[in-house]
Amino acid sequence: MPMDANAPIEVTAMAWVPRGARGQVRDLRVRWALEEAGLSYRTRLIDKRNQPEGDSAQPWAQVPVYREGDITMFECGAIALHIAEKSEALLPRDPVRRATAITWLFAALNSIDPMQQCLTFARFMGAGQDWADGVRGAVIPALEGRLARLSQRLGDKEWLDGRFTVGDLMMVATLRTPPKGSLAMPDNLAAYIERGEARPAFQAAMAAHMADFLPDEESVTA
Amino acid sequence: MPMDANAPIEVTAMAWVPRGARGQVRDLRVRWALEEAGLSYRTRLIDKRNQPEGDSAQPWAQVPVYREGDITMFECGAIALHIAEKSEALLPRDPVRRATAITWLFAALNSIDPMQQCLTFARFMGAGQDWADGVRGAVIPALEGRLARLSQRLGDKEWLDGRFTVGDLMMVATLRTPPKGSLAMPDNLAAYIERGEARPAFQAAMAAHMADFLPDEESVTA
Repeated sequence: MPMDANAPIEVTAMAWVPRGARGQVRDLRVRWALEEAGLSYRTRLIDKRNQPEGDSAQPWAQVPVYREGDITMFECGAIALHIAEKSEALLPRDPVRRATAITWLFAALNSIDPMQQCLTFARFMGAGQDWADGVRGAVIPALEGRLARLSQRLGDKEWLDGRFTVGDLMMVATLRTPPKGSLAMPDNLAAYIERGEARPAFQAAMAAHMADFLPDEESVTA
Repeated sequence: MPMDANAPIEVTAMAWVPRGARGQVRDLRVRWALEEAGLSYRTRLIDKRNQPEGDSAQPWAQVPVYREGDITMFECGAIALHIAEKSEALLPRDPVRRATAITWLFAALNSIDPMQQCLTFARFMGAGQDWADGVRGAVIPALEGRLARLSQRLGDKEWLDGRFTVGDLMMVATLRTPPKGSLAMPDNLAAYIERGEARPAFQAAMAAHMADFLPDEESVTA
């Protein structure tokens, strides 16, 4: 269990988010990477109800921020790669496989996630409005087309390049975010997501992520 | 001028795209990184009118694909980082500044670009439809809010962390894509984009990018 109040690595996380967002906030991805790498960390909790700007190192007023000595980072992709560089469990040493793993890391964040972000926008900002249906009608077929192509690449392999890497970590983390239920998810990708979520490191990260949330009624004073 | 038919690095690019897309296809970003690093490359042109699936190494049927010996990569962010690792011109050796540069690289691709992709979807797939206005009404204020925060981080600095890095390369490349004209772009970000586009390496990359397109009437036979 790598949570340790004296660990040199600090990760910010939310003290409170609505119940539906728990299990989805992006500190989970960083915790997962740390668990895979076997690195201890401590968390610093932000309650946005009292601290709307959050940690000043995070320009978008979000989490996570990662601190390690003089290094301060944000963006879950950048942090996951930084952690991966410390551990062959996440990043193969072989330069060809390393390049492939990093390619899939970026693919998750720039070729799959943006379409999901667009659907999330429509879901939250367009709730009850006609335009949200228009977005869904345009973006869902495009995303499904991309998932079909990803499904072909995965084929019957366990992970995208055979063994688990930081590329799989980010792809699973991306694919498991809503609006999964409304998409036609190819069977091999659904099984791939399940394999990712079944990993002990994911389970430990999720348990720690959930344990850090305050009950709905409570609040941290700023 | 680093284009060289015998160079060990190959980049795929489009032989033809509509005039409005020229200057925006993502091989430009890879060419720019190669120019900044002083690395020669050769291009292999894909004409999607004859080869709709393009290069089989690119799962989304897009460009660029990057080849160097046994290494094959796609995703402009992954390729830009790979090139940056070869050259201090793009990635400082100091670990703190290196981490910051990589953070901004991911920020461009996962915190700015997705909102722009959502607007691009609305522009092309929603043309003439009411829902496109709904998307714009929701996403433009969100993107403008993020640009205001980015503007604060840049302040009066020339580049995001003082000196030019691969993070600036990708941030400028992202900010300069449409729909720039319809956004309230803070003055210091507009000047930042202009500084990026004025760099000799950007200019050389753009010239090579444009020179590789066939005239509108012509076509490459597959």
